[in-house]
Amino acid sequence: MKMSTLFTKTLKDAPQDAESANAKYLIRGGFVDQHMAGVYSYLPLGLRVLRKIQEIVREEMDAIGGQEILMPALLSSEPWKTSGRWDDPDCKEVMFQFKGAGDRDVCLGWTHEEIITPLVQKFVHSYQDLPVFVYQIQDKFRNELRAKSGILRGREFNMKDLYSFHTTEEELEEYYDKVLEAYRRVFTRCGIVALPTEASGGAFSKVSHEFQMPTDSGEDVVYVNQAGDYAWNKEIAPDLKDGAMAPDGSGPVKEMKAIEVGNIFKLKTRFTEPFKMTYMDAEGKPQPVMMGCYGIGPSRVVGSIVEAHHDDRGIIWPKSVAPFQVHIVSLSAKDESVQDRIRTTAEDLYEDLRKEGIDVIWDDRTGVSAGAKFADADLMGMPLRLVISEKTLAETSAEWKIRGEADARLVPLEGLMEEISSFVSEK
Amino acid sequence: MKMSTLFTKTLKDAPQDAESANAKYLIRGGFVDQHMAGVYSYLPLGLRVLRKIQEIVREEMDAIGGQEILMPALLSSEPWKTSGRWDDPDCKEVMFQFKGAGDRDVCLGWTHEEIITPLVQKFVHSYQDLPVFVYQIQDKFRNELRAKSGILRGREFNMKDLYSFHTTEEELEEYYDKVLEAYRRVFTRCGIVALPTEASGGAFSKVSHEFQMPTDSGEDVVYVNQAGDYAWNKEIAPDLKDGAMAPDGSGPVKEMKAIEVGNIFKLKTRFTEPFKMTYMDAEGKPQPVMMGCYGIGPSRVVGSIVEAHHDDRGIIWPKSVAPFQVHIVSLSAKDESVQDRIRTTAEDLYEDLRKEGIDVIWDDRTGVSAGAKFADADLMGMPLRLVISEKTLAETSAEWKIRGEADARLVPLEGLMEEISSFVSEK
Repeated sequence: MKMSTLFTKTLKDAPQDAESANAKYLIRGGFVDQHMAGVYSYLPLGLRVLRKIQEIVREEMDAIGGQEILMPALLSSEPWKTSGRWDDPDCKEVMFQFKGAGDRDVCLGWTHEEIITPLVQKFVHSYQDLPVFVYQIQDKFRNELRAKSGILRGREFNMKDLYSFHTTEEELEEYYDKVLEAYRRVFTRCGIVALPTEASGGAFSKVSHEFQMPTDSGEDVVYVNQAGDYAWNKEIAPDLKDGAMAPDGSGPVKEMKAIEVGNIFKLKTRFTEPFKMTYMDAEGKPQPVMMGCYGIGPSRVVGSIVEAHHDDRGIIWPKSVAPFQVHIVSLSAKDESVQDRIRTTAEDLYEDLRKEGIDVIWDDRTGVSAGAKFADADLMGMPLRLVISEKTLAETSAEWKIRGEADARLVPLEGLMEEISSFVSEK
Repeated sequence: MKMSTLFTKTLKDAPQDAESANAKYLIRGGFVDQHMAGVYSYLPLGLRVLRKIQEIVREEMDAIGGQEILMPALLSSEPWKTSGRWDDPDCKEVMFQFKGAGDRDVCLGWTHEEIITPLVQKFVHSYQDLPVFVYQIQDKFRNELRAKSGILRGREFNMKDLYSFHTTEEELEEYYDKVLEAYRRVFTRCGIVALPTEASGGAFSKVSHEFQMPTDSGEDVVYVNQAGDYAWNKEIAPDLKDGAMAPDGSGPVKEMKAIEVGNIFKLKTRFTEPFKMTYMDAEGKPQPVMMGCYGIGPSRVVGSIVEAHHDDRGIIWPKSVAPFQVHIVSLSAKDESVQDRIRTTAEDLYEDLRKEGIDVIWDDRTGVSAGAKFADADLMGMPLRLVISEKTLAETSAEWKIRGEADARLVPLEGLMEEISSFVSEK
């Protein structure tokens, strides 16, 4: 993409109420735009990040047998009355409930157990039809009283929700562990550390797991084990203190603030029972279906990545989710023929990279100072910045700088493509 | 995909209220599931079709300079009050309006002029910032009193909406014609004929254009010109009759029922004026921004394709949007070693096709009769069916049948891959 055609521009200032790093940099960089509290538009750069995260999630869900579907957001009240959540005060608080045509009670989807259970039920009759793993990637709605922290806690937000259906509790537990490993892979690939964290299992299970990313801007408090690969939410361990022995006796814990980016739940028969979802076992006897649910918030992951990867100049995107891998900056020169050579060199590089399938943005704007272009590149945060100027062309080179590293160096134009390809493909 | 792992199954009967062909076949084939009137889930097969249509739309929008963004569905009432549509009775009728947290008026997006105008306004200051072309592909909500015709008229439906912003009316008109051509390409690529149709331009323009697909199940009445490439909506030509002279004098028109699958509008200053969106011209004087909007409903296109392409056995998907290009059917045999050979041959073919990047579904189910497998293949409607059975293996062949054509023929296994590749790649 050429920056001269991109309709968004970087902004000098973020809105005053954008306190968190993610809101500040995502708005200033032209990644998102706030429509109202907790509700954002994704602009071209931000949508590219969101899509890359969704694609990582999709690949990992497909790898554990997930079949993708897409449920509606506008929902009938009926299945919620069946499950008892329509009138549950805790649920009512976050559900947008209103009247549709014909004075019918409807609501917006904030989770989809009530929709997926009767849907899968239509296709499951015997033990041979199980297990089933279904997921969707969709916008969800929660009527948060106080939407804050930029895109971390929104009233409308993107969610991947996977639901699994099993014949036995053992099979559910086996799949639950498989999802836990898939989630580790998702977060690692997105460039963040999110720890499996013991949390309340609700009314139907002893524990569930959240995935918590430690960061000072987090809203949750967790206790991280000594190895740094497991944690406990303060909610279920209110007496734990920083430095105290971990519940599993593995050593002292460290108290940290954290952002929840995913969660996994053994629902067992919490929903299959009210919907009377059973299967016929090998003896022809009806048995209850066991169910699990597993969420990741791709839009929240966008914000979490920014919280984890930024400096005082802007965002530092991990390669796997950066809107573009390479940011070419061509500078101006007084001499017109030099100026032409700079532009042609930059354009050739830009076209070569596109042909190679490498995501590249080229700051081809004229009449913008070198300082302003560098500041924009730092704010927008692409992994590799390549500057082409009168100075670099005198050495038949480009200036190579990795975002987040202090040093820049000259790389000869000959062999530059190979070096970029190898930079982009290495993890 | 292997049918043995697909969680959906074909259904013998469609729901009684599924009168239209698209609802009947899409539900029976396991493409969609009805949640409530006018609200559907897309199941794995249906989601693949929807995605392919969206991708065609995306390619054609990108080709005319469109930049993709994603606006929210949950919207503040404020910009609608600015435009005057919050209290407009015609708009109120289709808008879901309700109260959010803090008793704030909110609504669901049914179109996005009120959101895109102030958004683009933030980035447009001078004539050098124009034109801007932005689009999104998103679910929209309309509180239809009578949702009917399957997925053709839904309360929640998928929409591509493009908005363009210009310095002059001439520039707007030029782009409008460009979009019209892009829309022709979209529908042709999706395998349907949708005619540009003159319709009312509303309060702000003399005419607009709808894209109408002639079909008996359509809700609109249009008069098609003699050449069959242009039409007039009855709404703006109430006195026209079948066989009468066309408004442009090109010959007699034919009255037909039709489905609207897209529309394009010159909005001019209808929205930029209330939002005070202006640009500075070369002389530094503020001028009004000219605007256009352009919609296509990908979910409605799914239904329209089925209306246009089916027979009494099921759907006949055009290659470009079929969930899978190839449907392998392996039959059973009494002799176990023959059975093994059938399975191995089918599996090898399946893996080879996947390696080639060809979308293939394999009916690998055991214990299902040949008749039931053929009926499912006809209902599901993939373009090419390949049967592997004891009979075809005796000739070291597979049976080759194109959906919608009567004849089947044997094709030798040697050279089969090449023939499939060439079938898939030809238009």
